Amino acid sequence: MQILLKDIAKLVDGKIVGDSDISISSLAKIDDAKPGELTFLYLPAYEKFFTNTKASAILVKPEFKKSRNDITYIEVNEPDKAFSSLIIHYFSPSFYLSGIDNSAFVDSSAEIGADVALGKNVVVSAGCKIGSNSKIFHNTVLLENVEIGNDALVFQNVSIREDCKLGNRVIVHPGAVIGSDGFGYKQDKKGVYLKIPQIGNVIIEDDVEIGANVTIDRAAIGSTIIKKGVKIDNLVQIAHNVIIDENSVMSAQVGISGSTKIGKNCILAGQVGIVGHVEIADGTVLTAQSGVSKSIKKTGFYFGSPAKELKTAKLIEAHSRNLPDYYKKITNLEEEVKRLKEALNKKS
Amino acid sequence: MQILLKDIAKLVDGKIVGDSDISISSLAKIDDAKPGELTFLYLPAYEKFFTNTKASAILVKPEFKKSRNDITYIEVNEPDKAFSSLIIHYFSPSFYLSGIDNSAFVDSSAEIGADVALGKNVVVSAGCKIGSNSKIFHNTVLLENVEIGNDALVFQNVSIREDCKLGNRVIVHPGAVIGSDGFGYKQDKKGVYLKIPQIGNVIIEDDVEIGANVTIDRAAIGSTIIKKGVKIDNLVQIAHNVIIDENSVMSAQVGISGSTKIGKNCILAGQVGIVGHVEIADGTVLTAQSGVSKSIKKTGFYFGSPAKELKTAKLIEAHSRNLPDYYKKITNLEEEVKRLKEALNKKS
Amino acid sequence: MQILLKDIAKLVDGKIVGDSDISISSLAKIDDAKPGELTFLYLPAYEKFFTNTKASAILVKPEFKKSRNDITYIEVNEPDKAFSSLIIHYFSPSFYLSGIDNSAFVDSSAEIGADVALGKNVVVSAGCKIGSNSKIFHNTVLLENVEIGNDALVFQNVSIREDCKLGNRVIVHPGAVIGSDGFGYKQDKKGVYLKIPQIGNVIIEDDVEIGANVTIDRAAIGSTIIKKGVKIDNLVQIAHNVIIDENSVMSAQVGISGSTKIGKNCILAGQVGIVGHVEIADGTVLTAQSGVSKSIKKTGFYFGSPAKELKTAKLIEAHSRNLPDYYKKITNLEEEVKRLKEALNKKS
Repeated sequence: MQILLKDIAKLVDGKIVGDSDISISSLAKIDDAKPGELTFLYLPAYEKFFTNTKASAILVKPEFKKSRNDITYIEVNEPDKAFSSLIIHYFSPSFYLSGIDNSAFVDSSAEIGADVALGKNVVVSAGCKIGSNSKIFHNTVLLENVEIGNDALVFQNVSIREDCKLGNRVIVHPGAVIGSDGFGYKQDKKGVYLKIPQIGNVIIEDDVEIGANVTIDRAAIGSTIIKKGVKIDNLVQIAHNVIIDENSVMSAQVGISGSTKIGKNCILAGQVGIVGHVEIADGTVLTAQSGVSKSIKKTGFYFGSPAKELKTAKLIEAHSRNLPDYYKKITNLEEEVKRLKEALNKKS
Repeated sequence: MQILLKDIAKLVDGKIVGDSDISISSLAKIDDAKPGELTFLYLPAYEKFFTNTKASAILVKPEFKKSRNDITYIEVNEPDKAFSSLIIHYFSPSFYLSGIDNSAFVDSSAEIGADVALGKNVVVSAGCKIGSNSKIFHNTVLLENVEIGNDALVFQNVSIREDCKLGNRVIVHPGAVIGSDGFGYKQDKKGVYLKIPQIGNVIIEDDVEIGANVTIDRAAIGSTIIKKGVKIDNLVQIAHNVIIDENSVMSAQVGISGSTKIGKNCILAGQVGIVGHVEIADGTVLTAQSGVSKSIKKTGFYFGSPAKELKTAKLIEAHSRNLPDYYKKITNLEEEVKRLKEALNKKS
Repeated sequence: MQILLKDIAKLVDGKIVGDSDISISSLAKIDDAKPGELTFLYLPAYEKFFTNTKASAILVKPEFKKSRNDITYIEVNEPDKAFSSLIIHYFSPSFYLSGIDNSAFVDSSAEIGADVALGKNVVVSAGCKIGSNSKIFHNTVLLENVEIGNDALVFQNVSIREDCKLGNRVIVHPGAVIGSDGFGYKQDKKGVYLKIPQIGNVIIEDDVEIGANVTIDRAAIGSTIIKKGVKIDNLVQIAHNVIIDENSVMSAQVGISGSTKIGKNCILAGQVGIVGHVEIADGTVLTAQSGVSKSIKKTGFYFGSPAKELKTAKLIEAHSRNLPDYYKKITNLEEEVKRLKEALNKKS
C-alpha cells in the first residue's frame, strides 16, 4: 500500500512542511522507522531519536524545531492522536475467521445470527443467542443461555458461564472468564465456610472491551454490570455485584471488591484495589497501586494505600522523605531546650 | 416456584410481622426487588432503599423500625445469613452436564467413576482417576496421573498438570491452572538462569474452591498443599511448596511466595502479598494490599507494606497525615528557641 | 533408580563424611525425606528438622556440625545449588507428547518441523512455522503466522495471537496469552474511548520462560520484545511495546506498563508495578510490591510505592514507626518552651 502524504495531511487536518509529493507505505515508531515510513513525535523523551530516525515523514507539533531537511513534516496540534487516526483509518486489522467450523458445537436451541463465525472446538450451549457478524475464536466456551450482540469479537480460550449477556461490538480477549461464581460464603460455628450459590449473572453493555485473563464474577443475586464503553485491561478482577458506569477505564491488575459502584468516566491505573460496598464518584482518577477503603464522593485525583487526595498524598510523601531530618531537628531542639533550662536555672 | 412465607420463617427461625399468608417466588436485592420477591436488610448503607423497595417481604433485625405496612417482615438476628440459607435451600443451581461427550478423550488407562460427566474436548490423560459424580466441563485438560475425588466440579478451560491430586467436592473455576512449574532457577556465573525441574506436585484436599484464572504451582520437590476447606478467589498466585492450612480464605489477586505456610482460619484480603519461607499464625487477618516480609507469630489483624499490627499501622497512618502540621510545629519551635536564646543572651 | 553416593559426590564436587557405600533412590525436602533419600540443608530456618530427618544422606556446608552418625554427609559450599544440579542431572522430567494428534488442526500453509508434537484440539493457523522437536499441548491455539523455534514447550490452553514470534527452547505455561491487544484508546470530546488498532506483535527470544496465565500484549506498532533468557512468573502483565532485556526475572503478579524498558539482569519481586515510558537500569532489584513512577538510572535495590532506594526506604520506614514517639517529643518541647518563655518573662 502506498499512501500519498497529501491524503494523510488532509485526513489529520495537518500542514505539510517539506516535500509534499512523497508517499508512505507504513507507520512506525520513531526509533524503528525505515525509509518510506511515517512516524510521529509527541513526548519530549523521544526527541533524542529525531536526529537519526530514518522515517520519510513525521507528525510534529507546529512549534517543533525542524532541523532536518531530508524529512517531510506534517504539523498537527496533537501528533499522537493524529497518528492514531491514521492507524484506525488505514491499518485496522481484519480478523480472519468465517463460517461455522465443523468442530464447533452449536446446540440445536441456540440462535445464531447472519454471518457469525465460530472457530474450532467452540461450544455454544443450549439457549445461547449470538447476533449477526460476531466472531468467536477457537476453543471458547459459552454455557447455557449466554447472549452476545452484533459485531462482537470473542478471542480464543474464553469462558463465558451461563446466563451472561454481552452487548454489541464487545471485544473479549483470550483467557477472559465472565460469570464465574462470586466469592461468597457463610461461616459456621466451627469456622467452616459454606458456599452461598451465586445465582445472578453478568451484563456487559455495548462497546465494552475486556482484556486477556480478566475475571468478572456473576452476581450473588441480580447482576454484575459493566456499562457502555467501559475498557478493562488484562488480569483485572471484578467481583460479584460490582457496577461500573459508562466510559470508565481500568488498567491491568486492578481489583474491585463486591458490590462496589464505580462512576462514569473514572480512570483506575494499574494494580489499584477497591474494597467492597463503596461508591466512587464520576470522573475520579486513582493513580497506580492506590488502595481505596472508603467511598470517594469528590471527583479528583487520589493516591496511596489507604488512598488520599493526590495533593495530600504527595505532601505527606515529601514530608516522609524528610523524616530523618525532622528527627535530627527534634533531637537538636531537645538539647537546645535542655541547655536553655540549665542557663535559666543558673541565673536564678 | 411459590414458597410460603411461613415455610421461610420456619427455615430461618424467624418471626413474621405482617401478612403471614403470602408466598414469594424469588429472592432479590433490596434495590432490585419486584412484587412477589423476598429481600433482606443488613448493612445500614442500604437502609435508604427501604422506603421504595417493591419487595413483598423482607428479612430484618428485630430492632428494625417497621415503618411500612405494605410489606411483610421476618425478624431474624442475622438477616444476611438467613438470606444465604434461603439461597442455599431453595435456589442451589444444578449444572447441566451429563455423560461423557463423544469429543472428550479418555485414555484407556484412566479410571472414571460412576456418573462422571465430561464435556466437549475434555482431555483425560493416562493414569488419571476421577471419582464418582464429578463433572468436568468443556476444553479442560488433565495431564497424566491426575486424580480427582467424588462430586467435584471443574469448569471449562482448566489446566491440571501431571500428578496433581484433588479431593472430594472440590470446585475449580474456569481458566485455573494447577500444577504449573514453580519459579525455580540456578544462576550461573554469567548471570544466565538455568531451570531447576519442578518434580513435585499439588495436593488439594476436600471442599477446596479455586477461583477463575488462579495459578497454583507444583512443588520443586514434595507437594504444594491446599488443605481441607480452603477458599481461593480469582487470580490468586500460590507458589511452589506453599502450604495453606484448613479453612483459610484468600481474596482476589493475593500472591504467596515459595515455601510459605499459612495457618488455619486465616483471612487474606485482596492483593495481599507474602514473601517466601515464612509462617503465618492460625487466625491471622491480613487486610487488603498488605505486604508481609516476616513470619507472623501472633494472631491478629495486620496492615501495610511492610505489614504491621493494624492498630500500629493505623496510628502511624494518622500521624503521617499530620506530618505537614508537625513540620510547622518543629519550625515554630526552632524560631521560639532561637528567640529564647537571644532573649537570654541579652539578659547576660 | 539407585544412585551411588560416590557418583553424587563426584557430580557436585563434594566430600563424603560417613558411609560412602550407600546409594539413594530419590531426593526430598528435609522435613519430608524417607530412608533411602538424599536431602539438603541450606537455610538456618530449616536446621530444626535435622534432628529428626529420616534421610539417608544430606548435602551440608563444610562447617555444619555433624551431630548424627546415622546419616551420611556430603560437604559442599552451596548445598542448595548442589541439590538443584542433582535434580537437573537425574530427575529432569520428560513430557509425554508425541506425534500430531488427529484432533489437532494444522493449516495446509503451516510449516511443521521434524519431531514436532501437537496435542489434542491444538489449532495451528495459516502461515505458522514450528521448529523441530517442539511440543504444543492440548487445546492451545496459534493464530496466523505465529512462529515457534526448536525444542520449545508450550503447555495446554495457551493463546498466541497472529504474527507473534517465539524463539528456541521457549517454555510457555498453561493459560498464558501472548499477543493480546495493547490497551490503547483515543478519547473523543464526549469522553468516549475509541480503540486504536494494535498492529504490532510480540517477539520472544530464546530460552525465555513464561508463567501460567501471564499476559503479554502486542505492540501498538512495532514489537513488544522479551529478550534472551528472561524468566517471567505467573500472572505477570507486560503491556504493549515493553522491552525486557536479557536475563531479567520477574516474580508473580508484576505489572509493567506500556513502552517501558527493563535493563539486563534485573530482578523484579512479586506484585511490583512500573509506569509506562520509563527505563530501568541494568541490574536493578525491585523488592516486592514496589511501585516505580520514574526511570531508575542507578543500579541498586529499591522499595516502596513510590519506590526509593532500599536504604532510604528502610530509614523512612523506621522513622515512621517512631512517629507516635516524635509527636510526644514535639508536644513536650512545646510545653517546655512555653514554660521557659514564662520563666523568662517573670525574670524581666
